[in-house]
This record gives sequence, C-alpha cells and structure tokens, in this order.
Amino acid sequence: MNQGNRMINWMHDLWDYPRSITGHGVRSTLKYLKGINSELEVHSYKSGTKVFDWKIPYEWNIYNAYIEHESGERFAELSESNLHILGYSLPLNKSISLDRLLPHIYIQPDNPDVIPYVTSYYADNWGFCMSENDKNKLPCGEYKVVIESEKKPGNMELADLIIQGKKSEEIFFSTYICHPSMANNELSGPVLSSALIQYIKAEYPESLYTYRFAFLPETIGSITYLSEHLDILQKRVVCGFNLSCVGDDRAYSHVESRLGNNLADNALKASLIDLSNVVEYSFLERGSDERQYCSPGVDLPFCGFSRTKYGEYPEYHTSADNFDVVTASGLQGSFDVMKSIIDAFEMKLFPKINVKCEPHLSKYGLRNTVSHKNILDDIHTRSDFIAYSDGKHSLFDISNKIKKNLDLVIAEATLLEKHGLITLFDVQQ
Amino acid sequence: MNQGNRMINWMHDLWDYPRSITGHGVRSTLKYLKGINSELEVHSYKSGTKVFDWKIPYEWNIYNAYIEHESGERFAELSESNLHILGYSLPLNKSISLDRLLPHIYIQPDNPDVIPYVTSYYADNWGFCMSENDKNKLPCGEYKVVIESEKKPGNMELADLIIQGKKSEEIFFSTYICHPSMANNELSGPVLSSALIQYIKAEYPESLYTYRFAFLPETIGSITYLSEHLDILQKRVVCGFNLSCVGDDRAYSHVESRLGNNLADNALKASLIDLSNVVEYSFLERGSDERQYCSPGVDLPFCGFSRTKYGEYPEYHTSADNFDVVTASGLQGSFDVMKSIIDAFEMKLFPKINVKCEPHLSKYGLRNTVSHKNILDDIHTRSDFIAYSDGKHSLFDISNKIKKNLDLVIAEATLLEKHGLITLFDVQQ
Amino acid sequence: MNQGNRMINWMHDLWDYPRSITGHGVRSTLKYLKGINSELEVHSYKSGTKVFDWKIPYEWNIYNAYIEHESGERFAELSESNLHILGYSLPLNKSISLDRLLPHIYIQPDNPDVIPYVTSYYADNWGFCMSENDKNKLPCGEYKVVIESEKKPGNMELADLIIQGKKSEEIFFSTYICHPSMANNELSGPVLSSALIQYIKAEYPESLYTYRFAFLPETIGSITYLSEHLDILQKRVVCGFNLSCVGDDRAYSHVESRLGNNLADNALKASLIDLSNVVEYSFLERGSDERQYCSPGVDLPFCGFSRTKYGEYPEYHTSADNFDVVTASGLQGSFDVMKSIIDAFEMKLFPKINVKCEPHLSKYGLRNTVSHKNILDDIHTRSDFIAYSDGKHSLFDISNKIKKNLDLVIAEATLLEKHGLITLFDVQQ
Repeated sequence: MNQGNRMINWMHDLWDYPRSITGHGVRSTLKYLKGINSELEVHSYKSGTKVFDWKIPYEWNIYNAYIEHESGERFAELSESNLHILGYSLPLNKSISLDRLLPHIYIQPDNPDVIPYVTSYYADNWGFCMSENDKNKLPCGEYKVVIESEKKPGNMELADLIIQGKKSEEIFFSTYICHPSMANNELSGPVLSSALIQYIKAEYPESLYTYRFAFLPETIGSITYLSEHLDILQKRVVCGFNLSCVGDDRAYSHVESRLGNNLADNALKASLIDLSNVVEYSFLERGSDERQYCSPGVDLPFCGFSRTKYGEYPEYHTSADNFDVVTASGLQGSFDVMKSIIDAFEMKLFPKINVKCEPHLSKYGLRNTVSHKNILDDIHTRSDFIAYSDGKHSLFDISNKIKKNLDLVIAEATLLEKHGLITLFDVQQ
Repeated sequence: MNQGNRMINWMHDLWDYPRSITGHGVRSTLKYLKGINSELEVHSYKSGTKVFDWKIPYEWNIYNAYIEHESGERFAELSESNLHILGYSLPLNKSISLDRLLPHIYIQPDNPDVIPYVTSYYADNWGFCMSENDKNKLPCGEYKVVIESEKKPGNMELADLIIQGKKSEEIFFSTYICHPSMANNELSGPVLSSALIQYIKAEYPESLYTYRFAFLPETIGSITYLSEHLDILQKRVVCGFNLSCVGDDRAYSHVESRLGNNLADNALKASLIDLSNVVEYSFLERGSDERQYCSPGVDLPFCGFSRTKYGEYPEYHTSADNFDVVTASGLQGSFDVMKSIIDAFEMKLFPKINVKCEPHLSKYGLRNTVSHKNILDDIHTRSDFIAYSDGKHSLFDISNKIKKNLDLVIAEATLLEKHGLITLFDVQQ
Repeated sequence: MNQGNRMINWMHDLWDYPRSITGHGVRSTLKYLKGINSELEVHSYKSGTKVFDWKIPYEWNIYNAYIEHESGERFAELSESNLHILGYSLPLNKSISLDRLLPHIYIQPDNPDVIPYVTSYYADNWGFCMSENDKNKLPCGEYKVVIESEKKPGNMELADLIIQGKKSEEIFFSTYICHPSMANNELSGPVLSSALIQYIKAEYPESLYTYRFAFLPETIGSITYLSEHLDILQKRVVCGFNLSCVGDDRAYSHVESRLGNNLADNALKASLIDLSNVVEYSFLERGSDERQYCSPGVDLPFCGFSRTKYGEYPEYHTSADNFDVVTASGLQGSFDVMKSIIDAFEMKLFPKINVKCEPHLSKYGLRNTVSHKNILDDIHTRSDFIAYSDGKHSLFDISNKIKKNLDLVIAEATLLEKHGLITLFDVQQ
C-alpha cells in the first residue's frame, strides 16, 4: 500500500489547481509533476496551430467567478469549487434577471446534490454549474454575474518523459492533466504514471525497453502529440496504455483496442486474471484517448486501462468524484497491474525450455518425490508454464493460455530460469 | 409499401399459370415477367441435353385432370387448383376401383385441410393431391381417372437479365419459376427480383456493378445455367443471393454459404441487423439453389435469403401457402433488405477517413459543442463508423462490427462523404 | 463384443504380474504381449543412461513383502496384492514399533476400503499401502517389517511394433506397461493396442499407412523412446494417440493436444460424435504421456484418448480399479472408436466429388423419386457429405462439419465411391 498512499498525497496537493485543457492550472500541475520526476519535459503549442483536423484552441484562464444576488448573497463561487464554472466561459460582468440567468446554469439531473462538470471548449459560451438543490434555492430578483476569465491566443501545454532503455522499442503510458478538482477522472492517472516512472527508475536503472509517459489534455493533447510524433511512435511503440479512472477500488476494466488482441490487450488481460470484478469492454465502449491512439492510420498498439471505467460509476464527471471514490488501495491495485506488465517486459517476454520433454522436476526439488493421488501436488502452474515455454508464446500468452495471473507466471519464469531450465528471449524464437 | 403492393399485384396475375420445371406454365410466366422488364432473355434447352450429372427432362404439359366417380361427381379437378395433379403425371384415361386409386392420392398428414404439393420429375408416375378431408369423402365404387397431360421431348425454359455496369464484377440474384399456385414458395422470389431490376434501372442508370438476375426452374435450372456459364460466373460474380420464400412477414432468414463468411454472407448479415426475428441457418440447413451455387468446384459466393425459410412454416408446399401468408409488407421487407445491399455496392464499399485521429466533428456541425454527460450525445454510430473507416473494412464489415443496420451505416457514409471526411473506394485500400 | 471379451481375457492373464517401471513384472508382461503379436520387439536400456533431462533409474524387483506383528499375524502381504508395497521400496528386514511403522503406511483418505497405489521412483524410501480400515486394526506392539526387494543397476524394458505400410507416414499408438494390478489404469491400454494390431494385420494386410505401437513405462519410458527416435518420429508421425483408461463404459474422453486441432484431435472428435457422455478436456487437464509427445520441441501430433479419464473416476489409482470398472463392452467401445479412425486413414482421407453441382442421386437409386415434404427423405448425411467432398476437407473434417459420426461418413464414402461419384485421395487436393 506504500505506493497507494504516496499517490493519494500527491492528489491532495494537486486538488485545487484550476485545470482545463490550457492555462495556468495545467502549468502548475505539470510543474508539480516535474517536482516528482525531474526528467519531465513540458512542451508548449501556440493557439491556432493546426494539428491534423483540429486547431490548438485559445488559452483560457479563470481567476474568479460567482453569481451575486441583489441581496449581496453569492452563489456558485469558483473559490468554493473549480467545477462551478462552465469550462472555457467567456469573461462577463453584468446584471441579469433570474429568468435569463437560469438557462446558463447546468445541473446533474440524476443527482440533486452534486455539481456537474461541463465544458464548452470550441464554441463561445458562458455558464455556471450547481447542484440542483442549490439552483432551486436561488431567490427571485436581479443578479450580477461575474466571470473573471481570459480566453485569448496563448499556449497549450503538455509534457512527456522518456526513460531510454537498451532497446528502442517503447512501452507508452498516456494520461490526462485537464480535469479540475475530480479524483478518479482525473487525478488518478497522472499520479499513477508518476509512481510508475519512479518504479522503473528504481527497479530497472538500465531498463531493457524504453518507456514513454505522456501527460496531456484529453483529445486535443493526444492529437497534438500524435501530430508531432506519429512517425517515431509508429516505429517504436510496441505496447501502450491509456490510463484513466485508475483510483477507485471497485472494478478492473479493460477497454479493448480497435482491432482487439494487440500486445497491450494481451498484456492487460494477463495482468487482470483472477482479480475481482474484471470487466472487458469492446472498443465500441471506448471514450478516452485510445480513441486517438487506435484511430485508423495511427493504429498504435494501445488499449485502455481503468478501475471503474469513465461513465460507469455514478460520481463520474461530478463533484462527487472525490476522495470517497479514490483510495490508496484502489491506486495500489492499478499500480500492481501495470507493474506486472513492466516486470514481464523487463524479464524478457519469450521463455523457451532448455530440455526436450518434461524436465525431471523432482531432481531440482521442484516437485514431490512420492507420487500419490492424495498428496496435494499443486505444480500445475509450473508444468503448464513449461508446456507453453516454446519460445513462441510470450509471458502474456502463457498467462492467458494457462489462466494464471501474470504475477504467478513471472514467479515461475524466475524460478525456472534460476534452475537453468528455461532461457528468456526478448523476441519470438 | 409502394413496392410491396406492386409485387403483390404481379403475384395475383401469375397465380393460375400451371408452372412446373418445363412446359407452357413456365413459358407464360416468363412472358409475363418480360412484360415487367423487357430486357429479360428467355433461353431454351432441348430435352435430353446433358448438364453435368443430369439430363434436361422431357417437357411436361398439363391441360386437364380430374377423378370422376361412377355417380358423375368429380374430385381433385385441376381447374380448381394446379396442386391437385402430381407434377409430371403421365397421361391417363381409365377406370379403376377406389382401392386401386387410393395409393395414387397424396395428402398432407399433419393438416387435413390442405392440398400438398408433390412431384415426380424423374420417374414415370401418376397421381393426385387432395386434402385429407376430401380424400376421406371419396365414395366407394368405380372411378374414371382423367389426366390430359403430355410428357415428351421438348424444351426447358429459363431466363436471365443482365444490367451492365462500369465494373465487370457481378452481383447475382437467382430465383425460381417452377412452383405452381403457391405464394411464398415461389411467386415471391420472381416478383422481388423483378422489382429489384426496376429499382436498379431507375436509381442507378449507370451502375457501378453489373447485376445478373436468373429466373429458373429449381435444381435442374440452376444446374443447366451453371453448366453453360460456369467459367464466366466464377470469374465475375462477387456476391450472389438465392431468393426464395421472401414474401411473408414473420422472420428474416439467412442460409449461410458452404464455407461461411463470404461477401454475400457479410452483406446479408449487415442488412439484417436489428430487424425482428432474424434467424441464421448453417449450410447444413440449406435446401434451395444455394445447393448448386455453393457446390464444390462451383463455389460461387452465394448465400440464401428468405423471410421464413422453406420447410420452417406450416403452409410450406401446400395449398395454404397463399395470400394469407404473403403480404405487401412482407415483400417490402425483403425488398428493403436487398435494396440496402445494392445501395452499399453502388456507393462503393470501402470508406477511408481523410484525416488522422478523430475529426473535429463539432467544427462541421456533426456534434454538440457543450460536453455534459447528461446531454444526449448519440453520435456513437458516427464515431464508430469513423473508427473503422480504414479502407480495409467494407460497409458490410463496419455494419457487422459496430452492430448497426446497413441502412444507418450507408446514411453515415453519405453524410461524412458530403463533408469531405471520408473517401469511398470500390476496392480494399 | 468379440474384441471386448478377448481383451478382458488377456487382462485377467496379466493381472498378477508385479509391474513397475522396471523389473521382472514388466518383462513378463511384454513377453505375454509378444505372445499375442509376435512382431513385438523388446528394447532394453541400462540404468544410468541419460535420456534428455532424466536418467534411466535403477532396476527394481520385488519378491516378497509383509508386516508381521509380534503375535505372528501378518499384514499388507504382497502375495495378497501387488499394491501393498510402495513402488520402488528399498529392501528391509527389521523390527520396529507401531509408532515408527505408521508414517510408512499409506492409505486412501477418501475411501477407507481400498488400497492406494503409491510410488517413489526417484528418492530412496520404503513403505506399505493399506486400506484405512486395515490400518486401523493394526494391534499395538512390535513389528517385523520384511521387504524382499532389489534396487540396483540393471535395465529398463519397453517394446514397440511397426506395421510397415505403403506410405512412410505413421499413425502412432502409445500406452503403458508399468501399472501393477489395476484394470482401467492400466491394463486396458496394452490390450486395446494388442487388439488394434491384430485388426490392422487382418483387415489391411497391405496397409496404406505405417502403424507404430509403443508399450512403455509411463513418463520415463516415453521420454526414453523419444530420446532415441525423435528425428524419425518428427518426420513420419502424422497422427498419434495416447491410450490410457480405455476400458470402462461410462464416458468417452478426449484430451486435446497442446495447441489443439491437430489431425489426431480432429480424428478423435469425428469418431466420438453422437456417442454418449463425450467429454473434451483441454491440454491443461492432461496427465499422461501426451505430456511428453506434445512437449515443446517434440510436438508430435498427438492427443489423449480415454473412456473415463485418469483422475476423474473414484477407483483411479486404488485397488478398486478392477474388473468391476473395466468391462468387455467398455473395451469394445474404445476399440470401435480407434477402428473407425484407422478405417478412415486406410480408405484415403480426402474425398472429391467427380461431378459439378449436386449429382442426380435418384438416377443411382440413392434418393427417392417422389418429392413430398412428408416422405421421410433422410438423405441429409449423403448430400452434406457430398457438399464438403471438395478434396480439401478430410473425412474427419467432414464428420466434424456435418456433425455425423465418422462411421456414418465412412459408410457414405464407401457407397458414393462404389457409384463412381467421388474419388478418394490420400493428400489434400
């Protein structure tokens, strides 16, 4: 749970930064993440830059916002929650009646207690988000609406970090830094990536594979990143994961790639075997940046990993997505899943048995010497592992084939390699 | 329902022609169909001509038939129903006792009210078909049996019609003209084919693909047609459908090809998605001319399409297969299924997205600008369509992959092509 | 049932030989089997010989063994059951107290009435096996333990028999001769193989394929055999079966090969269609010599065949595995399954229809001439067989495709070949 608690602490620190797809909330978030891993590099893109079918939008900054009744009472104050402001609201300072104000107030119809998260990045608009209960309490009369924001040409920031390995083949983790004051979606992804970076640097100072981490605003960020690096990514990335909603402790979710069954899909399936409440979603149920990474003509070998997937939990995109939802053990569970996959890559993926026929396991102390059907002889994992150690099945394949969690398979590989019974190769034999 | 009503009217006109695999009933039927589409060409084959393992049988004509009791009362009169005569009965005019008559009378054991449809094309025989109720009423005594038929060397007719397109690749529709006075099996097929011909000529006067329609006696007709045209059919036909029992409104049936999963199978599956009561039959449940078109060494990419499949509805091959079974809406449903497939071919099968990553849909007015999880944002079909528009998946593949009816997929393709977001190709990219 | 009764008689004769993986019990067993088929060749391997990761163990012989209470009463006498002695027990002649004796006594915890079968081939040990009931009756006091055995350098025997066919391609049957005084596991395998040899020699004196039969001690025997013949086996064996527990009459079991779907898997599936209580086990549930034959780098096209699989019946590896478990009809069932497979190979595997389109079956008397939906027209097997007689589907493939037992498929092939409608080829066309 060590990692889980550290990740939770980072999330608390990051909670109040007013994140959006651009602006000072993003900048301060990236600065904080660079504090955790100093190799993080921040990249800046000018508003208006064309990225595939999109343009980098104007930079938006929010400083203050509230609605003030003629009585002086204030509502929907930004200082109380970053969610109160419709993302990318234009600046405003004017008096209007309640009737004309109401169409600009967004609520969450299925839960009167929570503030929804609403944005309007690509069309001029303004608005406030409130709980339905609070909205219903707005007194009649005149209101002053104050939005101290800026939306103008500026920059969009994103960051990446590359851990160079012996091989140029890359494992790529991507996550978001554009969601304000929500926990699972999405402070959980950036802190998980930060913890994984620290793990790789500590555990594999001379790693076999190259690891790439990206911290991006969703959609426009990944499109921008792909627009700049597509060639190199297509050449190098062998396995990628989109990390989103990785902090609650309810389910483990796999959003399959567009065509299904790439290396990332196989790896994630193997790492999820025997965990509780595993859910597989087809690509038709995607909704995060695997949309871009797997798009036709991009086709990176990505899939999506979540605990409870975006859209599948009631607190999603509301003020209720907080530290009641995300827990240290939830984050730790995600860390362990990704750690196993990294461990498998680093130990080399393709085991091959060094002898013909089954090895004489009892000779190595790897099996009982008395054969009796009632002595618990639980070496099925071992003999099944060996049966598929043909240099053609990866550790992920074996795990999926013998239906044992990747961790157990890695443990068997470690033990059998120690006894000289298998050799591990980084390419199929 | 426009097409459905026209097809029903044609069926009424064709009802009384005494069809069999040869003879004047076939000739008058083909003449009527040529009245609908004048390009229809009738081909004549001499009795005794060898066609693969078969020989064109003698021509059979039936003019009159009845059983007359010594009292003068007549039974099983051809003038009341074409089904009363055992198909290919030899001519006869003799007196016999009831005892010796009864073995020549065929009934439908599971329904005492209907006349069964029975034939004996390839062995000399004579007989009558009656409802069990009527058979039981035959009084004791002597009978005169009168069959005014001819069975002698002559010709077998069949017809085809080819609509030449820009490409030599053909879509082939085959159906029967050998069934007397039954509606679903088989006046429905010939009228559906006739309506499809009119649709293609009106909608696609310069069609991309070439369309071939055949109107044949079942089995011997398709064998004859294949015997004459096998080389050219194997070179050109890319997709074929056997149309039989396409007029009732109860189910939609797909009889899979011999090896499954050819272009016709994929197309039909796509066009049936979300219709009510869709049934997939394996090739083991075939029973129509897909038997010949898919036979080893012929192997045209055919499958079978029916509403309720032959053999699967109680009225099948009896006098109850009438206009209570076949309806305008039933025929219209079949028309719509085949029309979608033609539309897909004509719009070109392989869409390819023109941009990398997801397009910025809201820029084109193809998506809401406010992102809020409770605004009904039903653009799943659109984004799923785009996700598989990689130039490799056909419109049929996409439909089957994203589980949306081919019509919806065609609508998306039309819209996205209009906005310049996709290009459609007639071959895989 | 002819074969079944002969096999049962052989088993009775072989019952008392004190089999283990080496020693005089094996030698006398092989001598008896050579009496049935004189071409059997016995091969001898010196203790200590390295075979892949293993060494041929010392030869073990057992002559007498018992426990004698100070009162003179004897227990666990070898002369009463070969199972009383722990396999490979060291010689012993000493007095010990009950307390020190008990840890050397093995029982079957889930059944107090039976003697378990226990061995310790590869670690020095001694012990007795008793029913729990008998163990509980051992009186207090001193015991003399007598084991008159030898465990010392010597030989391990195994045998094979090859029936040379016109083709060098081999069908390989392997079974065990190392189990003492148990019926299903494993006297059933050796007698089945013996009966199959007689069948092939009688039925196919000039066989098309070459047949190889091996009679081995389990594990070490097959490893030794593979160690000596691997190259030739990999070149020649096209289909192999491990025969074990083939004598009871409860189920038919198929243990799939490592990668699944090899020729042996397809053949066995075809031969089991429509039998009662067929169970398919994945390779993860293996436990017999398919472990060696399918191991990585060996990869012979083997699968396992059993009636009720080892480990899946309560009498397995106990004194209850006797002639109440194995019956003549159980053995006959196994014989018939393997016989069909041999028949299919010998008739040549790939039928190809000689005509295009469906043949005119009624012309050959192979179909009714009157077509009436209520005349039972059960020619589905025939027309389905023809539909897949394309020279590409083997008799096994066709059987699995049309879901008819291999026997029926062979009968159709025989009939259609007689009428000149198909030609059978021994290689895919």
